[in-house]
Amino acid sequence: MNKFMDEALLFANKAYNKQEVPIGAVIVKDNKIIAKAFNCRERKQNALYHAEILAINKACKKLKSWRLDNCELYVTLEPCPMCAGAIANARLKKVYIGAHEKTSEDNLCEAILTSPRLNHKVEFEFLSEYEAPCKKLLTDFFKSKR
Amino acid sequence: MNKFMDEALLFANKAYNKQEVPIGAVIVKDNKIIAKAFNCRERKQNALYHAEILAINKACKKLKSWRLDNCELYVTLEPCPMCAGAIANARLKKVYIGAHEKTSEDNLCEAILTSPRLNHKVEFEFLSEYEAPCKKLLTDFFKSKR
Repeated sequence: MNKFMDEALLFANKAYNKQEVPIGAVIVKDNKIIAKAFNCRERKQNALYHAEILAINKACKKLKSWRLDNCELYVTLEPCPMCAGAIANARLKKVYIGAHEKTSEDNLCEAILTSPRLNHKVEFEFLSEYEAPCKKLLTDFFKSKR
Repeated sequence: MNKFMDEALLFANKAYNKQEVPIGAVIVKDNKIIAKAFNCRERKQNALYHAEILAINKACKKLKSWRLDNCELYVTLEPCPMCAGAIANARLKKVYIGAHEKTSEDNLCEAILTSPRLNHKVEFEFLSEYEAPCKKLLTDFFKSKR
């Protein structure tokens, strides 16, 4: 298991408890967590408030830099295009992902993270042992909403 | 000419005067401007502070809704993947664009705006009469930085 993805999953659970789609994100630098966040779109009524965006915002403020060099992001669900673009724009080094997004047949996340437009490709890795717990939290959430 | 893109271009000029890459964005609902912003990445040292993201943030706060239904965005440069994703997530109806992004051979902007993942496709249109003035402002800016 991975302590940083465990923390992201803990934050996804916080979202669940607040009736938000349960997604959590953590940013790590030098083996220390510098930002963590969970999805707050409904409560804050803001289309931008995905876990990754909120974590990147906190990390930029903490490091006082738009460049998150040598930082890694852990997120419980494969990022949407907005978040993948933000990860690339912030020059994050690597993204660790829990569950696959079921609507990702278009491979937009990978295309964005590895696009040559910024002369910066973001590495990414799915942590297969987290696919089941991250997905179960989402499935339980949507079942409870029906 | 178009009064909303004129306003976006005016905001791009404000960015220029503050030593920021000159890009401006305006959001319109019911033929009225509800949000306007310009790129502030360097001054604020935040990777998220593109003109479109700042305008969407303001519009969500103003309308107290993450859904910007029936809103249109005017932006002086073709959106990057982060901003195109934010535009789709906020369910904007249409985007009017000034200049083409020169590194957009990958067509990521179009792929994101028209992706079926959200059951919402964003219309988009390049306003050809603005290609030259929007591009000139960017070219002048990068020349001045050399």
